[in-house]
Amino acid sequence: MKCGLFTAEGDLVEEWEIPTRTENGGEAILPDIGKAILDKIENWSLAKEQIVGVGIGVPGPVNKDGEIPMAVNLGWGYKHIPGEMTELTGLPAKAANDANIAALGEAWKGAAEGCSNVILVTLGTGVGGGIIVDGRIVAGAHGAGGEIGHANVKRGETDSCNCGNRGCLEQMASATGIVRLARKALENSTGETALRKSNLTAKDIFDAYKDGDALAGEIVGQFADYLGGALANFAVVVDPDVILLGGGVSKAGAPLVEAVEKCYRNYAFTPCRGTPIRPAELGNRAGIYGAARLVLQ
Amino acid sequence: MKCGLFTAEGDLVEEWEIPTRTENGGEAILPDIGKAILDKIENWSLAKEQIVGVGIGVPGPVNKDGEIPMAVNLGWGYKHIPGEMTELTGLPAKAANDANIAALGEAWKGAAEGCSNVILVTLGTGVGGGIIVDGRIVAGAHGAGGEIGHANVKRGETDSCNCGNRGCLEQMASATGIVRLARKALENSTGETALRKSNLTAKDIFDAYKDGDALAGEIVGQFADYLGGALANFAVVVDPDVILLGGGVSKAGAPLVEAVEKCYRNYAFTPCRGTPIRPAELGNRAGIYGAARLVLQ
Repeated sequence: MKCGLFTAEGDLVEEWEIPTRTENGGEAILPDIGKAILDKIENWSLAKEQIVGVGIGVPGPVNKDGEIPMAVNLGWGYKHIPGEMTELTGLPAKAANDANIAALGEAWKGAAEGCSNVILVTLGTGVGGGIIVDGRIVAGAHGAGGEIGHANVKRGETDSCNCGNRGCLEQMASATGIVRLARKALENSTGETALRKSNLTAKDIFDAYKDGDALAGEIVGQFADYLGGALANFAVVVDPDVILLGGGVSKAGAPLVEAVEKCYRNYAFTPCRGTPIRPAELGNRAGIYGAARLVLQ
Repeated sequence: MKCGLFTAEGDLVEEWEIPTRTENGGEAILPDIGKAILDKIENWSLAKEQIVGVGIGVPGPVNKDGEIPMAVNLGWGYKHIPGEMTELTGLPAKAANDANIAALGEAWKGAAEGCSNVILVTLGTGVGGGIIVDGRIVAGAHGAGGEIGHANVKRGETDSCNCGNRGCLEQMASATGIVRLARKALENSTGETALRKSNLTAKDIFDAYKDGDALAGEIVGQFADYLGGALANFAVVVDPDVILLGGGVSKAGAPLVEAVEKCYRNYAFTPCRGTPIRPAELGNRAGIYGAARLVLQ
């Protein structure tokens, strides 16, 4: 787990990591965080009264009040995270979903600095997202605000998404989703390509795309069409100032952003057509920035 | 134009209508509204100091500050509506898009009363919408928040939407959109149906659907699949407490809501699958309720 100590003005003073112990239903996770915080306060010779609060990002649905029904990756069932955190530390606490909090961080000190309305899509093992409206996280009624990886982008898809549905954005635009598109394209192609290899990765596909590989171009075209089209549909819901692409896949950089942007403009409603699409900036620090902002706003 | 006088507690005291004079670039519209307000204040022997403010819904994109780039149906170019209204009346004023303000009204005193997060989709001549997050209108960066009629729901559509794009929800789920779907279905069908008639309307199609007409069933199935699928995609963005169906087409009532609900559940991300879909309640009063709420919140 990534931790950060911030001043009340929003400057990052120190960052560090602690292990995530998921055994026994993840029972040690919050106490470990609590201890890390109390130790840090002691190391800096701070008084608890000087601490504005604790912000936490959680990989799972978190509602506005910081409650989660579960967090599968941590082994957790229902928790009221701020309540437990305050009990452990004696400090005020807030919690939000990790992708939402990353969006808040980017809107505060990252690629969307100064923007009130932001869509962040994180392209990693899965596809996540965070929505900021009027400077605040859209948590939603069930903590599912910003779960844009599970928008349907292909009617009639036969493969299943991890969520159980068929045709989710995540099946097209995640690291594994792009490889899935590539496998299908390879099955239907006999042409020369750098992609006929074992352990094909999303990075291989984008590298080949940059080298002018025709099949990679076709696959990236499909990926960009699904993602750009989906972003255009999200844009008519919240009409953001900016759309950010984050997560490991977005490391493919400018060629990826340009491909997505082109498709986005093709589908976008006229008033939203000029909305900039940019890479996220804060990387794996986005979460600690967002957690600090959650406490300070 | 529909007008309403509300108490500061939110009770509707009187409602009336005034004509919309669109000639000469709609220059008389705001002065007409201003006069109607001042006359009403005089009729009720109120002092201006007793008036909390004036709220206005406008058919066009309105940003958070009440500015519009244009409102085609009124003949307007750029306007700062609250500024002009305050100049005309000496009263504080706020403005928002008409569909957004209807959503706010429904969230305040209508079918979504007590809900903080609402999606309203209005199925009329076109398809409009309004998004409420944490009790407030999502206006967006360009006033295009909630313009969900222009989400793309069909890649490869060849007919054009009024907006210039192809495959918009409005082309499938508006009154004219449903008739368009029916025309295409009729071209490809030789079976018996009540729909082979001139001046076919959306109402005819829903009436035939209720009577068990097979072709009408197919058409309503298409309509519901497009709309339900689109709503499922909007739900992963803002995760509403409730989804409301309003506008003239929604008068088809329970059979329409049920058909849309079934398709919605088919596409919805698990945490959002149980989100209720209900008909809007306030009809053409939704706007005046929302305008009052805008001023009072």
